[in-house]
Amino acid sequence: MEPSDLVAAARQGDRRALARIISIVEDRRAGADEILEQLYPHSGTAYVIGLTGAPGAGKSTITDRLIGTVRSQGDEVAVLAVDPSSPFTGGAILGDRVRMQDHVSDPGVYVRSMGSRGHLGGVSDATTRAVTVLDAVGKPFVFVETVGVGQAEVEIVDAADTTVVVVNPGWGDAIQAAKAGLLEIADVFVVNKADRPGAPETVRDLKQMLMLGDQSGWMPPIIESVATTGDGIDLLWKAVEDHRSHLTVSGELQERRRARVETEIRRGLVAEVLAAASDRLGEAEVDGLVDEVASRSLDPWTAARRLLND
Amino acid sequence: MEPSDLVAAARQGDRRALARIISIVEDRRAGADEILEQLYPHSGTAYVIGLTGAPGAGKSTITDRLIGTVRSQGDEVAVLAVDPSSPFTGGAILGDRVRMQDHVSDPGVYVRSMGSRGHLGGVSDATTRAVTVLDAVGKPFVFVETVGVGQAEVEIVDAADTTVVVVNPGWGDAIQAAKAGLLEIADVFVVNKADRPGAPETVRDLKQMLMLGDQSGWMPPIIESVATTGDGIDLLWKAVEDHRSHLTVSGELQERRRARVETEIRRGLVAEVLAAASDRLGEAEVDGLVDEVASRSLDPWTAARRLLND
Repeated sequence: MEPSDLVAAARQGDRRALARIISIVEDRRAGADEILEQLYPHSGTAYVIGLTGAPGAGKSTITDRLIGTVRSQGDEVAVLAVDPSSPFTGGAILGDRVRMQDHVSDPGVYVRSMGSRGHLGGVSDATTRAVTVLDAVGKPFVFVETVGVGQAEVEIVDAADTTVVVVNPGWGDAIQAAKAGLLEIADVFVVNKADRPGAPETVRDLKQMLMLGDQSGWMPPIIESVATTGDGIDLLWKAVEDHRSHLTVSGELQERRRARVETEIRRGLVAEVLAAASDRLGEAEVDGLVDEVASRSLDPWTAARRLLND
Repeated sequence: MEPSDLVAAARQGDRRALARIISIVEDRRAGADEILEQLYPHSGTAYVIGLTGAPGAGKSTITDRLIGTVRSQGDEVAVLAVDPSSPFTGGAILGDRVRMQDHVSDPGVYVRSMGSRGHLGGVSDATTRAVTVLDAVGKPFVFVETVGVGQAEVEIVDAADTTVVVVNPGWGDAIQAAKAGLLEIADVFVVNKADRPGAPETVRDLKQMLMLGDQSGWMPPIIESVATTGDGIDLLWKAVEDHRSHLTVSGELQERRRARVETEIRRGLVAEVLAAASDRLGEAEVDGLVDEVASRSLDPWTAARRLLND
């Protein structure tokens, strides 16, 4: 199938075409540029919600519940799971089971798991491309679930319209979120597993930490939930919708998306150079440079500059 | 102080000069290129040990114990903590305390924490540069501690000579390590907190998973430890030394380091282009490109190519 046929099929709802397109663009395989060029003009209408937090905090269960909420409104939804420990990723290693299968037979739900490594240009770049595809084929809501530890993962949710940070009751979790840089990016907090001891204290701690920061703009609400029973999920969805209204009314949504375009151009630039460098780094003359660096008669950064200015 | 004065001072053991140099090179500030050019010929003798695993697995406590082992041999040691939840990072947020201070007053121990985000060129690039500095000022052992979740973090330990993967008793932890791609990079496994129930089962599970993989080369040993008491730490250090001997005798150390040089050149290339792009991405003509992409009349990847070929 030609790229343009794939694009047409995916935009008409063909899930296999959609899956193939995402594989092609996330790994920048042949045809990726053509596909993105054709899809990009149709993107820009999806609302992107990032969910992040420590492994085991309950991100997938919350996402699962939110899918139910969106579906009950009659809207379609797509999920990108970048968390290697997410049950959505479903890689069955030695008997590990996917717990969450409620929505897999629903044609209005598209779930895609992404490996957290091995993408040329990085996982943030691959995720951005996949979001663009889902946006352009007409998904009104895209959830991106990722573990909130590590630069690339934080960057992913940073690119969402609304970022939901999931913590659990207990002092340690709020601190860990703070240290991982999640306080700065949270638009909405969820204290999940709020039926466990310590939930009110965690809410209080989060509030205190928020009071230390900038209080001029949007003040992230703190929702308590028990995702396994569905408690608090309606409040969470309302908080996401409130944030969306705030962004739209204040004009911040336009600003954020403009900033994101800059980031995407920057990433595109890096990906281009990486691809060019990969082609080069097998050649004989480059081997010579590697020899020089390996013998410490040249440093790798000077070698890079030589390569760049060749 | 001029870059060359800083280099001379750091190589003579001046810790403040060393700290300044690392700050300069990790963020590629003015003088970074000159410093790295001067230091690089002196690097290549340090042995780099990466420690990774889930938050809370006990990486810092193990590192703390290994510092003790290395110091009792009479060798100096440096630690780079990239884990945002590591007590080594020591950022005191609302009463959070650094638990581990045994070695801070020892002049033979140099501990440095690195933020996990915000580095131009990424945390892997920043860490590589910091390791080069510590190597070049004569530290015979460099420990790099990072949480084993996420592409950038796995890349960091991937660049170590010996990579130690820390898991805890319990079926879930071994699975998570597998899913995060840690099985492929482990040279040594530690089942820490081995006094808890399930340790023998975890050892067995890890063995089974290893049996599924390539068994031709080095077979990663699986050590049980209780880092809080020090149990198993001697065995762990012996495993690291065995691995080092294996790499040296087989010639793999040379191969690995050569591959790392290629990676460093590649990263240097990306960092160069990013820096150039950052300079450009404020200019009026680039603003025009951003406008075009924001209005969806151009896609960001085509914009990047235009920028690159300008």
